[in-house]
Amino acid sequence: MNTIQSDNYPVFFENSIDELVKFIEQGHYSRFFILTDENTAEHCLPLVKSKVEHLDNFDIIEINAGEESKDIDFCIGVWRMLIDFGADRKSLLVNLGGGVISDLGGFAASTFKRGIDFVHVPTTLLSQVDASVGGKTGIDINSIKNIIGTFTQPKAVFINLGFLETLPPRQILSGLAEMLKHGLIQDAAYWHQLKASDLTIPSAQLVHRSVEIKNKITIEDPHEKGIRKALNFGHTIGHAVETDSLINDKDPLSHGEAIAIGMICESYLAHKKTGLPAEELQEITETLNKLYPRYTIKQSDFDTLLEIMKKDKKNQNGNINCTLLTNIGQCNIDNNCTEAELCDSLLYYINL
Amino acid sequence: MNTIQSDNYPVFFENSIDELVKFIEQGHYSRFFILTDENTAEHCLPLVKSKVEHLDNFDIIEINAGEESKDIDFCIGVWRMLIDFGADRKSLLVNLGGGVISDLGGFAASTFKRGIDFVHVPTTLLSQVDASVGGKTGIDINSIKNIIGTFTQPKAVFINLGFLETLPPRQILSGLAEMLKHGLIQDAAYWHQLKASDLTIPSAQLVHRSVEIKNKITIEDPHEKGIRKALNFGHTIGHAVETDSLINDKDPLSHGEAIAIGMICESYLAHKKTGLPAEELQEITETLNKLYPRYTIKQSDFDTLLEIMKKDKKNQNGNINCTLLTNIGQCNIDNNCTEAELCDSLLYYINL
Ligand SMILES: NC(=O)c1ccc[n+]([C@@H]2O[C@H](COP(=O)([O-])OP(=O)(O)OC[C@H]3O[C@@H](n4cnc5c(N)ncnc54)[C@H](O)[C@@H]3O)[C@@H](O)[C@H]2O)c1
Ligand SMILES: NC(=O)c1ccc[n+]([C@@H]2O[C@H](COP(=O)([O-])OP(=O)(O)OC[C@H]3O[C@@H](n4cnc5c(N)ncnc54)[C@H](O)[C@@H]3O)[C@@H](O)[C@H]2O)c1
Ligand SMILES: [Zn+2]
Ligand SMILES: [Zn+2]
Repeated sequence: MNTIQSDNYPVFFENSIDELVKFIEQGHYSRFFILTDENTAEHCLPLVKSKVEHLDNFDIIEINAGEESKDIDFCIGVWRMLIDFGADRKSLLVNLGGGVISDLGGFAASTFKRGIDFVHVPTTLLSQVDASVGGKTGIDINSIKNIIGTFTQPKAVFINLGFLETLPPRQILSGLAEMLKHGLIQDAAYWHQLKASDLTIPSAQLVHRSVEIKNKITIEDPHEKGIRKALNFGHTIGHAVETDSLINDKDPLSHGEAIAIGMICESYLAHKKTGLPAEELQEITETLNKLYPRYTIKQSDFDTLLEIMKKDKKNQNGNINCTLLTNIGQCNIDNNCTEAELCDSLLYYINL
Repeated sequence: MNTIQSDNYPVFFENSIDELVKFIEQGHYSRFFILTDENTAEHCLPLVKSKVEHLDNFDIIEINAGEESKDIDFCIGVWRMLIDFGADRKSLLVNLGGGVISDLGGFAASTFKRGIDFVHVPTTLLSQVDASVGGKTGIDINSIKNIIGTFTQPKAVFINLGFLETLPPRQILSGLAEMLKHGLIQDAAYWHQLKASDLTIPSAQLVHRSVEIKNKITIEDPHEKGIRKALNFGHTIGHAVETDSLINDKDPLSHGEAIAIGMICESYLAHKKTGLPAEELQEITETLNKLYPRYTIKQSDFDTLLEIMKKDKKNQNGNINCTLLTNIGQCNIDNNCTEAELCDSLLYYINL
């Protein structure tokens, strides 16, 4: 599994934790700090710690698990810990965890003393195939997701598939949605390969291919002016459904579960607007519907969902744009969709 | 007074407020926001407002005056206002004020939705000749200055000398210290010109020359790896004296007053270590001592001052580095100074 070269930084797939140790030693950092949450402290930190035991210039910063920790208040907590531990400009932050840890840690590091080095060791499938690549950092304010952040690249990413063994199946499914998305927008063969695979824990080779696709797109368009919007497929509607579920459901949808719904609805839109063939719409719908649990959306929720879409930072001046497929493996960005069309697509999902 | 071209952005000196209006109109921003403090709201905002009256897509964000407003809590306040006012990625932030407004506003904008455009309209001498050029943004946590920040360039800077008319004389003196520094580190002729000028309100031509010098240095070395450290002349000791004064004095030193002391001490070090001729040391000492009020430093403060210097983010591993002159108009960076040498230089100031 070869190392992927991203925008000035490598993404390691082989002996990744050993590579991490080498990276730290060769970087001559004054100190380094490992950012974990409760779960990664339990399941992933022991392996990392056993490999850096011979170094004495590090500290652990542990935060609560969950999206609530991506809030500005926790970020201030991380900054304060860095100050208290004596972090200087030659310090390194190692983000050991899922997307919450890499987004928060990346932001905290990119702004501490106007920027210190950081690396990601993603421990969820979602963060391995998505959050750790592409240079977006972000935190939330008042539950408004990623409202504050920077575009800053990590110095390296270390992907260790072994960490996925302790990940709950629902988290695997969440990351899988992004992998399926990568196939749908960019690589039909990869989509078919995914459909044919045992996806309980995706193989290293599949993870590798997803990182390749995400990496290629984000290198071409780091600041999301054009082609990077391809990655928003499923996310205009999916993100609204996710936000609404977070507010109203006792056991809210995971990101991937919401994106799966979004991909079904937006494939319907693609069939209506950008020529996605009927049989491909059906193939996508069936595949996603089999993998992901059904979710109840009521017609009385449509207004709320549309409001959320309009406020989405991807949309401007009240226009709602979607990335739509033309075929499996190909897409078009910036398709303006009317409220009626969006409601129709939600009805398509409801009536399945 | 010609426009100075910085790192991809212009610094305007003529008809600057008209240029600002032109910039806003031509930028096709969805909305713009003017960040002010109490004083600039009173003294500077009326002029700007009178020129943008015909536009209806803006709001004012006003904060308290003073360094306390550079705290993360106020930054969160600015972010919240931007959210409440419906700022999107195509919004613009106009920072109308001194260094507190440009540092805070620059940081808030550079991280809001991963970065929106901002411009500076500096209204203090210090911010015109120093803070508004060079791309450093920053905020404080627990009074630790600029501990959080980014390197992000404004889209333009609009310098209007007229704003200086309402500025208290002590604030003029504070900015003047940086101008004198620019001469000492880079341009002997400029230093002599400053000495010969009426400095009650420095002429546009002098401000222009200072911006040229700061701009040239920061373009060459945006991230402070080398030559930019020249700008730290006077700041190793001066910053420590300033911090100590902020904590202990009822009426603390201004930044420039502290830097003037730092420049005297560090010129003494330069005489001892990098060959600054005795008569030039004397010339610098006399000039600064005449312009700036005497300040009492006690020998019992030396330990505290040294501690502050070691914690300074410019210094690493307990080493204290100074930028030292070799002649008036020339300097050397990264001169390691011992504690004994630093104490000697403070004694030199005390015994003047
Ligand atoms: N920056 C980007 O480009 C980008 C892309 C996608 C998502 N994101 C962000 O990522 C976040 C979601 O990522 P996530 O799903 O990884 O969230 P997460 O970090 O909250 O991880 C999910 C859960 O799994 C636990 N966990 C992590 N690793 C584990 C392991 N090996 N074994 C057992 N439990 C483990 C965590 O403690 C947490 O409870 C969101 O905040 C989202 O905005 C960012
Ligand atoms: N980013 C950089 O490169 C850089 C460089 C130097 C200093 N700084 C920062 O700048 C800050 C100091 O700058 P400052 O001295 O301009 O501080 P400031 O913004 O607090 O202004 C000083 C005072 O003058 C008032 N004021 C501003 N304009 C006025 C006007 N036209 N008339 C009357 N009153 C007016 C302000 O309200 C304030 O009370 C510090 O926080 C420092 O860290 C940053
Ligand atoms: Zn996603
Ligand atoms: Zn200064």
